[in-house]
Amino acid sequence: MKILFLIPVCLSLILSSCAQKPEPCKSPPLLEGALSAFIPGHHLHVFEKFSYDAFGQNVRVLAAGKDGNQTFFVDNLLLFKEGVSYQIHYHNQTCIKTALKEPFRHIGVPHDAHFLNQLVLGSSSLPGQGLLVNNWNGTWEETQEHYLLTFTALGCVPLYTLDFTQKGELSAITSFFDLVEGIEDPNVFIPPSFCDSVKVLPAKGGVGARSFISLL
Amino acid sequence: MKILFLIPVCLSLILSSCAQKPEPCKSPPLLEGALSAFIPGHHLHVFEKFSYDAFGQNVRVLAAGKDGNQTFFVDNLLLFKEGVSYQIHYHNQTCIKTALKEPFRHIGVPHDAHFLNQLVLGSSSLPGQGLLVNNWNGTWEETQEHYLLTFTALGCVPLYTLDFTQKGELSAITSFFDLVEGIEDPNVFIPPSFCDSVKVLPAKGGVGARSFISLL
Repeated sequence: MKILFLIPVCLSLILSSCAQKPEPCKSPPLLEGALSAFIPGHHLHVFEKFSYDAFGQNVRVLAAGKDGNQTFFVDNLLLFKEGVSYQIHYHNQTCIKTALKEPFRHIGVPHDAHFLNQLVLGSSSLPGQGLLVNNWNGTWEETQEHYLLTFTALGCVPLYTLDFTQKGELSAITSFFDLVEGIEDPNVFIPPSFCDSVKVLPAKGGVGARSFISLL
Repeated sequence: MKILFLIPVCLSLILSSCAQKPEPCKSPPLLEGALSAFIPGHHLHVFEKFSYDAFGQNVRVLAAGKDGNQTFFVDNLLLFKEGVSYQIHYHNQTCIKTALKEPFRHIGVPHDAHFLNQLVLGSSSLPGQGLLVNNWNGTWEETQEHYLLTFTALGCVPLYTLDFTQKGELSAITSFFDLVEGIEDPNVFIPPSFCDSVKVLPAKGGVGARSFISLL
C-alpha cells in the first residue's frame, strides 16, 4: 500500500526535475546585433554587425577586423535558400557572387549539446544587475572540435561561444551584444542592383561551417 | 539676444551629456558570490566562493583550483582593519596567521579608469535576455599592467576583469557570477577558535595587491 502511494510521488518528483533541466534551444528567428570574435592563434580580432533571418534563411554581415597589422572590412550577404553568397563592394560597385553549398544553421544550442550548469552573470539581488544563463558544452560534428556555449536561460539568446581545438586549446572566443529581435530594414537581404549581372563562382571548399560566423 | 537664449540651451545640453556618461563606481559594500579566474601563462584555473564586507573591511575566500595537474583548496580570511590574514585548515584544526599590510581595496571601477563603451550583453528586446554593462580600461598604479573591466551599468556589479602584461598579453581573466547583496552568515568573518593561540607571521612580500583576488 505504501509502495502504491510512493510511485506517484516519485514520478512527480522525477518529472518536475526533468522540467527544470534546460533543453537545447533555438535562438529567436529574427535577430540583429553585433558580435566580437577573437582567434588567438591568428591574432585575429573581428567585429561584426549582423542581421539574421531564420525564416528566410538569410544572413547579412558587415565585418571589420585586424589580422596581425592589417585591417580589413567585408560586407557579406548569405542567401541559403538560393544557395548564393555575395561579397559586396559599394566603394567600386562590384560584387563577388559565390555558390553557397553549406546548409543554413540556426543560431542556438545544438540538439546534442551537454548541459553544464546554470548561473547568474553578476547579481540576482536587484533587476538589471544580473543575467540568468545556461552553459553547454559538446563537440562539433564536422570538425570534432569542442565548444562551450553560454545562452540566456530566458529566450535562448546567444552570449558567448568558446571553441577549442581537438587538443583542448582555445581557438576562438565570440561574444554577442546589442542584440534586438526583429529586422529593422528587410532590404538588407536584397543584393544591390550592381550584383545582378555577376556570374556565380563555384563554392569554396571547407570543412563544413558550424554557423554563419565561421563562413566569413 | 539670440546668444542669451543659446547659452542656457548649450549648458543644459552639456549637463545632460555629462549626466549620461558613466562615472567610475564602487560595487555594493556587502557581496557574496563566486568567481572563476584563469591565468593562461600558468595554466592555472581557480574557482572561488567569497564573502566581501567593505564596511568591516573583511573578506573570506574559499578557493579551489587546478595548477597544472595539481588540485588545491584554500580557505582564507582577510581582516584588513586588524591587519591579519588566516589560512584555515579545518581538517587538522590548524591555522596560518600572517600580518596583512595591504590596504583594503573596494571592489569597483578605479577612479582613474577610462570609460570605453556601454553595451547590452545579449538582447535588449525582452527583460531577462540582456544586461546593460559598461566597459572600462586603465593601468594598475602598482604594476603598470593594463586592465579591461566590465561592470553592470546599474548597481556597479562586477562581471569581468581582464588583466594584461605590460607587453599587452592576456595574463588573467576573472568572471563573477551568482552574486547576492548582503552577507548570509556574518560568522564567516570570525576566525575559528583553534586560530586564537597562533603566532602572527610577518607579511609576505609582494608588488602590492590590486584587489583581494590577487592576494590569494
